[in-house]
Amino acid sequence: MNKNPKNAGVIVIGNEILSGRTQDLNISYIGKRLEGLGIILSEVTIIPDIENDIINKVKVYSERYDYVFTTGGIGPTHDDITTVSIAKAFNVNVVRNKDAANRMEKHYQHSNLSEARLKMADIPEGAILINNHVSGAPAFQINNVFVLAGVPEIMRSMFDSLIEHLVSGPAILTSSVCTNLTESKLANGMSKIQEECQAVSIGSYPFFKQGNLGVNIVLRSTDKDLLLNQHKLIEELVNNLKGKILETHLSDET
Amino acid sequence: MNKNPKNAGVIVIGNEILSGRTQDLNISYIGKRLEGLGIILSEVTIIPDIENDIINKVKVYSERYDYVFTTGGIGPTHDDITTVSIAKAFNVNVVRNKDAANRMEKHYQHSNLSEARLKMADIPEGAILINNHVSGAPAFQINNVFVLAGVPEIMRSMFDSLIEHLVSGPAILTSSVCTNLTESKLANGMSKIQEECQAVSIGSYPFFKQGNLGVNIVLRSTDKDLLLNQHKLIEELVNNLKGKILETHLSDET
Repeated sequence: MNKNPKNAGVIVIGNEILSGRTQDLNISYIGKRLEGLGIILSEVTIIPDIENDIINKVKVYSERYDYVFTTGGIGPTHDDITTVSIAKAFNVNVVRNKDAANRMEKHYQHSNLSEARLKMADIPEGAILINNHVSGAPAFQINNVFVLAGVPEIMRSMFDSLIEHLVSGPAILTSSVCTNLTESKLANGMSKIQEECQAVSIGSYPFFKQGNLGVNIVLRSTDKDLLLNQHKLIEELVNNLKGKILETHLSDET
Repeated sequence: MNKNPKNAGVIVIGNEILSGRTQDLNISYIGKRLEGLGIILSEVTIIPDIENDIINKVKVYSERYDYVFTTGGIGPTHDDITTVSIAKAFNVNVVRNKDAANRMEKHYQHSNLSEARLKMADIPEGAILINNHVSGAPAFQINNVFVLAGVPEIMRSMFDSLIEHLVSGPAILTSSVCTNLTESKLANGMSKIQEECQAVSIGSYPFFKQGNLGVNIVLRSTDKDLLLNQHKLIEELVNNLKGKILETHLSDET
């Protein structure tokens, strides 16, 4: 564990996400996992399957963030251009990786290992392979960039395999108070509680339930005692304002 | 309608999306609506509630894209910093907007219109208001940037109100063929069909169903006849490869 938490960026590659045809589920998964590891997800971008867009974004993110995760575009079809684009971003060639081909041979019966499928064993030179227990074809890491599949089940398996390569930071603890009060009612009191203690960040997220607005107040900190203290103050605020506490939650670690 | 389609960028503002606590639903909604209007969604970014991040991203996107949509951070609480940040990006002041305050007075009974709630009538000078039929407080447009709420129900109401301000392009027509074949089997044939006609873009999106991989092949074009022709070729390809067509779909317009 590192006391200075690392930061990260995610690049989602795929026309189908931008067109709204596919609902992305990977961002929230990666966000939650990184929070659990004490790594700060600083930015996400979603870009189309266009080579130059991928090259430029990977270069910028690789310099800006400690870790970069890409999802999508590493399959065997004509629109899977992530691997080639990332190789270009780092000025290396894409070559048939023997280890990757071996892993795929083990996963598939030999007769099922077509040349088209083996295209997924073509990996940028010097990249480190990342296991894929779901469909065989490995992901890879090049420099600080982890290149993952877009299909959520496969992406999750790859993410599980790569976390051993990440340096975790102090765990971010969270708690939440859900109330039927509106944000306007809570605003002043919540603002004061936030001002008193910057080490606990307080976010307020309005929601609709059966036509009525309510608010979910979320507290986050690496300091357990401070978190519990501010959590109590928020509960008191809701009570003083004659609101109902619909739900109160402390994360396991707290 | 404009023959040269406009492009757009979306900036999602919110720590709760980056932490994975909240699943974003606005990106896919905006993506679908823009596709229907023939406007190309070129890029999405998700950033935290940090003033400088918002200012910088809004400046870049406003220059780069015809239309920019932001979601999140326009409520009445301390963590709602979008309005102030956007005013700073355009070097204007935030002032109490009388028209906005009037709309809120109409929406709320007078006794419910607290000063905290009226904070949402503080809008960058020169901005154009956008109606919000759900919770009263308007969104706004400044230059080419549309500043919307994060709560999906409210964001959708605002989006409905603003589309009259957008110049639509030629409608993008789509069709899809869903099959039990794998991407590897389809790769060669699909690549040839794509090469023969660049005016119809073909994307392939693998999925899991009951442990088996299948593929959804999506075709997109502004030309109806070409789209129908390429759609037929894809169906023939699946049949030739002895695959099953699980579902075939032509959008209403086709």
